[in-house]
Amino acid sequence: MARVSRLIQGGVTSAQGFLASGVHCGIKPQKKDLALVFSRAPAAAAGVFTTNKVKAAPVLLDIERIRSGRGQAVVLNSGNANACTGEQGMRDAREMAQLTAQSLEIAEELVYVCSTGVIGRPLPMDAVRRGVREAVKLLGPDGASAAEAIMTTDTVPKAAAVQVSIGGQVVTVGGMTKGAAMIHPQMATTLSVLTTDAAVAPPVLQAALRRAADLSFNRITVDGDRSTNDTILLLANGEAGVPEISGPGEPLDAFQEALVTVAVTLAKMVARDGEGATKLIEVTVRGAQSEEDAHRAALAIASSQLVKTSIHGGLPIWGRIMCAAGYSGAEVQTDRASIRIGPVLVAERGGPAGDPESLEAAARHLAGDDVQVTVDLGLGRGEATVWTCDLTEGYIKENAGTIT
Amino acid sequence: MARVSRLIQGGVTSAQGFLASGVHCGIKPQKKDLALVFSRAPAAAAGVFTTNKVKAAPVLLDIERIRSGRGQAVVLNSGNANACTGEQGMRDAREMAQLTAQSLEIAEELVYVCSTGVIGRPLPMDAVRRGVREAVKLLGPDGASAAEAIMTTDTVPKAAAVQVSIGGQVVTVGGMTKGAAMIHPQMATTLSVLTTDAAVAPPVLQAALRRAADLSFNRITVDGDRSTNDTILLLANGEAGVPEISGPGEPLDAFQEALVTVAVTLAKMVARDGEGATKLIEVTVRGAQSEEDAHRAALAIASSQLVKTSIHGGLPIWGRIMCAAGYSGAEVQTDRASIRIGPVLVAERGGPAGDPESLEAAARHLAGDDVQVTVDLGLGRGEATVWTCDLTEGYIKENAGTIT
Repeated sequence: MARVSRLIQGGVTSAQGFLASGVHCGIKPQKKDLALVFSRAPAAAAGVFTTNKVKAAPVLLDIERIRSGRGQAVVLNSGNANACTGEQGMRDAREMAQLTAQSLEIAEELVYVCSTGVIGRPLPMDAVRRGVREAVKLLGPDGASAAEAIMTTDTVPKAAAVQVSIGGQVVTVGGMTKGAAMIHPQMATTLSVLTTDAAVAPPVLQAALRRAADLSFNRITVDGDRSTNDTILLLANGEAGVPEISGPGEPLDAFQEALVTVAVTLAKMVARDGEGATKLIEVTVRGAQSEEDAHRAALAIASSQLVKTSIHGGLPIWGRIMCAAGYSGAEVQTDRASIRIGPVLVAERGGPAGDPESLEAAARHLAGDDVQVTVDLGLGRGEATVWTCDLTEGYIKENAGTIT
Repeated sequence: MARVSRLIQGGVTSAQGFLASGVHCGIKPQKKDLALVFSRAPAAAAGVFTTNKVKAAPVLLDIERIRSGRGQAVVLNSGNANACTGEQGMRDAREMAQLTAQSLEIAEELVYVCSTGVIGRPLPMDAVRRGVREAVKLLGPDGASAAEAIMTTDTVPKAAAVQVSIGGQVVTVGGMTKGAAMIHPQMATTLSVLTTDAAVAPPVLQAALRRAADLSFNRITVDGDRSTNDTILLLANGEAGVPEISGPGEPLDAFQEALVTVAVTLAKMVARDGEGATKLIEVTVRGAQSEEDAHRAALAIASSQLVKTSIHGGLPIWGRIMCAAGYSGAEVQTDRASIRIGPVLVAERGGPAGDPESLEAAARHLAGDDVQVTVDLGLGRGEATVWTCDLTEGYIKENAGTIT
């Protein structure tokens, strides 16, 4: 895909006609815990949801509502996932949407709900009720508070926006996300709200979001777990005044590229901010027999605890990379495979390459914050990239020491 | 399978007619690094090998040889995997077998080779040559040195033996193994040598070993990686003087049970001794729609970094267990699933069970060295057990700090 969009400072409110807010209502002891995103006009809506068979109540509600292809607001809370909460959980999710609709004076069916946090505890609805009223009052053009209010173990809020020219007019796509652990393709405790002032027909919007998710949030892995709550929602309100995109053509291509850019930017932020992580690791596999094979091999490498731990330690142990490719299910012929760590060739034709100085150069690359691992399987033209982070003592401390 | 065998003190030399030795030859700086197992009489042989597409040279050699169904000796080294070593690696594996055969004065085709350790470095053949000669000289009835010489990051040597009565006579099955990290079904850097003085026809022996591996080494996971070198070899020399087992019947049932008992005992030793591990975790899923579904769900739970880390921290976060079952691919209906931690019911019908005291009791169970997690999916009769260990800072330190 040719790059046509450009990144700008911004987030979920960068597109015209979107407002947001984030408040502390008491689900968490101190930090902001409830966010609201609102489009002044009703919008086309699309959603991608967790494939986990254990789905949280808000996910079940959103899956039901997204069929309409319409939406106007998303209310999100952190600190409690409203998952494994039975009938009460469904009632609470519905009430959260109702309250939001009433306060915003819009139809209830246009409100989506997202929750993230601890599983198996009822939502503290008194706090949620207070939070919704407050969030509606505080709606404004700055998306920063909303991005902050959806954080769980994230260390930084995550937002991005791009602009792209469609038919000579500027269209903006923006968004916010949260992640940290339980991040794995299909998908993660990822909550993402994306917004655009393009006008896009709902089925086209859904297909564009699916494609963007497949190239971004479905290509990151932190710890292999997939959550009960993962949700990506996209609202397109048409406020830029560009004609509706209703099928293939240059406008859709430009919009798709912009959407993928925002989604990939956000997904990489999630991978980099994995619990305890100190590095973003980009694993590219090329020369595979197919794109699927490339994806399989890249994912196995990026998911390997041994690979991630050795990169944390700055150790260029390429055998662990080769081994992970070997068990990925992708076709691998050892004597055709080569591996680069950063720019440094460390293995070729299935065996060691270069000299001891190569390994030293590879170790220097691993010492940085951005690590590239490139495997060429030497078999075909399939290529795929997956992003992950290193596995550290910090991950263990975070997950063995606290209930989040 | 009814339990008919009984565990005895012993290992790879407990069955009649087997000798073993373990020596230090210089592949590793100080510790024992070369082992030999020898049957005084030629034996029936069976083998199960890694499914990794990147297979080490000795694995390729053994796969070729096992077709004969015959064997008499296994030579093993630690400290170097002889994997990703190309043509030279194959020559070295062959020479290792040749030297062993010459020193033992047996046919070369009856010798199997196993290697474990670092990938991508040529075997130091001078050391190996010295080691083989020395190991042949030191062959004796004690298997302890051999079990020690195959250790890599293992903290303890691993051996087990059982006796079972077949046709009124005592038959012994024994074995040794090594593991630690890169342990995952299909299979692990597991090297295992099993021995028996039963007489078993090679095809029957192969089927029995496959079944035993499926219920033991293929049911443990430490970190999800599968190695280039995994090998389980079984020699049956008939020295107990019992008629050959050549097909179904009581003798095969008794032998199979004994073999499974040894294999499960060894596999659990491997899981308990996972790198950095402080606990053995037994995950049982029952009430699944099928045995495959039960296995899938148990494996997903046992592989979940979040589950393993929270158990390390003594935290009964059952939501992580439910979540892992949900993404396992097994059929799960949240409102029918229940979870026990040890004897304590912590979740039922997909939601919390019991009172705060239940969680305290569950936390007390998690504080012990042996943790049981039992999930009842409430859907059918499928049941499976998988063993794993907790995930700790020790794992990270071990794998980020040293090249092993």
